[in-house]
Amino acid sequence: MKHLISIDDLDQEEIEGLLDRAESFAEVSKRDIKKVPALRGRTVVTLFYEASTRTSSSFELAAKRLSADVVSVKSSGSSVEKGESLKDTVETLSAYDPAAIVIRHPQAGAADMLTNWVDAAVVNAGDGMRQHPSQALLDLLALRQRIGSVEGRKIWIVGDVLHSRVARSNIQAFSKMGAEVTVAGPPTLIPRRIEESGCEVRYSLDEIEEADVVYSLRMQRERMKESFVPSIREYARLFQINSRRLTPRQLVMHPGPVNRGVEIGGDVIDSDRCLIADQVASGLAMRMAILFELLAHGDHRESAEAPVPIGEPA
Amino acid sequence: MKHLISIDDLDQEEIEGLLDRAESFAEVSKRDIKKVPALRGRTVVTLFYEASTRTSSSFELAAKRLSADVVSVKSSGSSVEKGESLKDTVETLSAYDPAAIVIRHPQAGAADMLTNWVDAAVVNAGDGMRQHPSQALLDLLALRQRIGSVEGRKIWIVGDVLHSRVARSNIQAFSKMGAEVTVAGPPTLIPRRIEESGCEVRYSLDEIEEADVVYSLRMQRERMKESFVPSIREYARLFQINSRRLTPRQLVMHPGPVNRGVEIGGDVIDSDRCLIADQVASGLAMRMAILFELLAHGDHRESAEAPVPIGEPA
Amino acid sequence: MKHLISIDDLDQEEIEGLLDRAESFAEVSKRDIKKVPALRGRTVVTLFYEASTRTSSSFELAAKRLSADVVSVKSSGSSVEKGESLKDTVETLSAYDPAAIVIRHPQAGAADMLTNWVDAAVVNAGDGMRQHPSQALLDLLALRQRIGSVEGRKIWIVGDVLHSRVARSNIQAFSKMGAEVTVAGPPTLIPRRIEESGCEVRYSLDEIEEADVVYSLRMQRERMKESFVPSIREYARLFQINSRRLTPRQLVMHPGPVNRGVEIGGDVIDSDRCLIADQVASGLAMRMAILFELLAHGDHRESAEAPVPIGEPA
Repeated sequence: MKHLISIDDLDQEEIEGLLDRAESFAEVSKRDIKKVPALRGRTVVTLFYEASTRTSSSFELAAKRLSADVVSVKSSGSSVEKGESLKDTVETLSAYDPAAIVIRHPQAGAADMLTNWVDAAVVNAGDGMRQHPSQALLDLLALRQRIGSVEGRKIWIVGDVLHSRVARSNIQAFSKMGAEVTVAGPPTLIPRRIEESGCEVRYSLDEIEEADVVYSLRMQRERMKESFVPSIREYARLFQINSRRLTPRQLVMHPGPVNRGVEIGGDVIDSDRCLIADQVASGLAMRMAILFELLAHGDHRESAEAPVPIGEPA
Repeated sequence: MKHLISIDDLDQEEIEGLLDRAESFAEVSKRDIKKVPALRGRTVVTLFYEASTRTSSSFELAAKRLSADVVSVKSSGSSVEKGESLKDTVETLSAYDPAAIVIRHPQAGAADMLTNWVDAAVVNAGDGMRQHPSQALLDLLALRQRIGSVEGRKIWIVGDVLHSRVARSNIQAFSKMGAEVTVAGPPTLIPRRIEESGCEVRYSLDEIEEADVVYSLRMQRERMKESFVPSIREYARLFQINSRRLTPRQLVMHPGPVNRGVEIGGDVIDSDRCLIADQVASGLAMRMAILFELLAHGDHRESAEAPVPIGEPA
Repeated sequence: MKHLISIDDLDQEEIEGLLDRAESFAEVSKRDIKKVPALRGRTVVTLFYEASTRTSSSFELAAKRLSADVVSVKSSGSSVEKGESLKDTVETLSAYDPAAIVIRHPQAGAADMLTNWVDAAVVNAGDGMRQHPSQALLDLLALRQRIGSVEGRKIWIVGDVLHSRVARSNIQAFSKMGAEVTVAGPPTLIPRRIEESGCEVRYSLDEIEEADVVYSLRMQRERMKESFVPSIREYARLFQINSRRLTPRQLVMHPGPVNRGVEIGGDVIDSDRCLIADQVASGLAMRMAILFELLAHGDHRESAEAPVPIGEPA
C-alpha cells in the first residue's frame, strides 16, 4: 500500500488491517499522552482546494499525534489563487520531500494524478464527486466499535447520492465488507445504473424499517437552486431521517456537517442511536492508521500493536 | 476550577493564584527555552468565530509553550460557513477528546453553553458583549508587575463601555481586587444602571486627574455609522486619552488593537506610561497559567512554581 | 549578522558562509528525521501582508525543522484588517519575545523599519518591489548544487524587471558572486538606469544564446491591464522562455509561481534544464541556514557542520 486513492484499491484483508491498526490508535487517543513518535522528523503536507474543518483538522491532528511536522496549504491566501496549476503547486510542495501529501480537490482524479508527479504517499481526502476513502474507512471503524462486523447488515444510504463522493466510497466499502447496501432518495438524486455497483435502489423510505443502519447524506443547499428537488421542505418531508421514521434498534450515521432539520432531524442527532461523534473520533484514529500504514508500516512489521506512546515504558 | 467563563466565577484568592502562576510562567518566557512539558500529548482546540490576532495567537502560543498539540478552527474556510450549528461543530471537535476548547463567539453565553456539551475545559475568549475574562486577568498581571496590588487604586475605564466585553470583565476584576473603578464616556456609550456593578460613572474626562490608571477602550468605527457618537473627530476631542490630558504619574492601558489618534493618542502609545506591550506579554503568561490551572494543576498541586523547563535540570 | 534585510548587507564571504550552512541543512533534509534541535523552545513569528504559499510555508517548515515554535499571522482574518498600524502589530507580536520575525509587506522598507522597533532578528521575506534576499540566496544555492560557483557565468534575468523585488535582489547577489548579469525585457518593464547596478540591458532575446542561465520572472497579469505590455500573447511571442529559444546546455530558473505558457513554456518547466524544484528545495535549506545563522550561530561557532539531528548519535 503506497497511496490511498480509492476504496477500489483495497481488498477485504487490507481493510481489516487498517481497522485493527486504527483500533490500536483509538486506544492511544484515550491515554493522557495521545501521541506516538512514529513519524518524528517527517513532514506531512495537507493541500485543500475546498473548505473543510472536519477532514483537514482530523488529518492535521492525526499527523501531529504521530509527531510529524505539518504544512497546511489551503486554496485561500495561497499561490493557488495566483493561478498556478495543480501540477506546479504539487511539484513545489514535493520539493520539501514530504512523507505524505493529503489532498482534497474539486476535480475527480486529482489525487491519482499526484501519484505520477511525486514520491510522497498520496492520500485522497476527497476528489470531486468520486471518492473519499478515509471517510468510508472511518465509518467502518465507527460501526465495528458499535456493532462489530457489518457482514450481513443492511445499510441504507439516503439522500443526494448523485453528488456524493461519500456515497460512492461507502457503497464500495460496505459491500466489500459483506453488508447489503441500499441507496434511497428522489430519482433526480440517484445516479443511473448505480445498481451495477452492487447496491439496491429505492425511491422512497417506505421500507426503511428493514435497515440496521441508516446513513444520511448531507443535502447541499445549492442543489435546491439547481432544481434537483422542489424545495427543502418537500425534500425533508419525504427523505428526512428522524425519530418518527425509525424503529428503536436502528442506528444513524452522517458524514457531517449536518443541516439540522433538513436531511436529518435534531431529535436523531441528539440521541444515542446517532454515531456522528463516534465517526469523528474514528476519523482521527483511522487517519493515524492510514498515515502509519503508508509511512511507517515497514518499521513495525512485526506487530499489529501501535508503537509505545511517548513517555511510557516500552 | 473546571472552566473559565466569567470573572464572576472566580474569588479573590483564585485570582491571586492565577496571578502567581502567571508570574512563574512569565519567568519561563524570559528563558532561552520558553517551554515546559506540562501538556505534552494533550490537545487544545481554539475555535474563533470572530477575527482575532492577539487573543488567538496568544492562546495558541501559550498552548504550544506548554507542549500541547493545537487545532485552530476559524469561521472562515471552515464548515462553520456551511451553516453547521455551534453545537454540532463543538461536538465534532470534542470527539478529538481535547483537554481544552478556547472559544470566541459573537453571541453572549456561547462559552457557557459549551460547558453543557463537552467534557473539555472551556475557556471563554470573548462572548459577544458579555465577558472576556482572560483579558481582565492579564490586565491585572500587567498592573501587578508595574505597580503591585491594585487595592485602593483608582482606575478609569474610558470610551465605549456599552459594547465592550473587556469593560464588563475588567470592572468586575478590578473591583474584586479592591480597586475603585470609574467608567467614563458619552452617555450614549455608557450602559444604564452600570453603577450597580460597583463602579462610578462620569460623562466627561474633567476629573480624570484623579485616576491612577486610565484604561482606554477600543472605539469601533462601525459605531460611528450607528450614530452613537456624532463623529470620530468630536469623539476624539472629548474622550481621546493623550498626553495633554494626563499628569505624568498616570498609567495608560488598552486591550488593542488601537486606533491611533482616535481613542488614544500616538504620544501616549509610544511613552513609558503605556502598558500595551506589558499587557500582551502578560497575556501569554496568563493564558499559560489558565490552561495550566485548568488542565495540569492536579499534577503539580504541591507547588506554586512552574514545572521545570524542558532541557533544564530539575 | 543580526538581521537579513537586503543582499546589500552581505559581503561575498558571508554569502559563502550561508551557502555552506545551507548545504549542510540540505543534507539533514535528506535524512529520515529531517529535524535538528537548534531552536527548541524559541519562537519564530511569520507576518505576511501579501498572499504566499511558497515563501511562507518554506519559512514555517524551516523553523519547525529547527524545532522552533511558529506563530503565523496573515493579513486576512487578523487585526491587520481592523486597521491597526504595522508598528502596533509588530510591537504586539514582539511582546512574545520571538527570536525572529519574518515579514512580507507591500511597502518597500517595511522590514528595515521593524529593526528599529523590535529586539528580534528581522528577516525580510519581500518588501514591495525592493528586496527578497532569501530568494536570491536560495537561487545561488540551487545553482551551486547544479553547476558549482557562478563566477564568470552569464546569467540573463528576463521579463518584468521593473516590478520585481526578485530581480533587484538577484542582480546584486549574482553580481557579488562574480556572475555577469544581463536583464532583458520590453522597455516598459526595464527600470531606467538599471545599468548602474552593474548589469547589462537588452530589449530582446536575440542574443540569449550567450546565457549560461536564463532566469525567467513571473509576469503578473495585472500588468496587462496597466498597459505595460500590449497583450499576453504578444509578450509571450517576444519574451517567453521556451525550448525553441534555448540551446541544450542552457539552464532555466523561475521564482514561482509560474504562468505556464506566458513567461515560460511548459516544455521548459518539465525538462531537466529547469531548476524550479531545486530552487524550492534550496529555499527550505537556505531558510534553515538563515534562521540558524541569525539565531543559533553563536552556540555553534566552532563548526560549519549542522548540529547533530534529533535521535542520532553525536
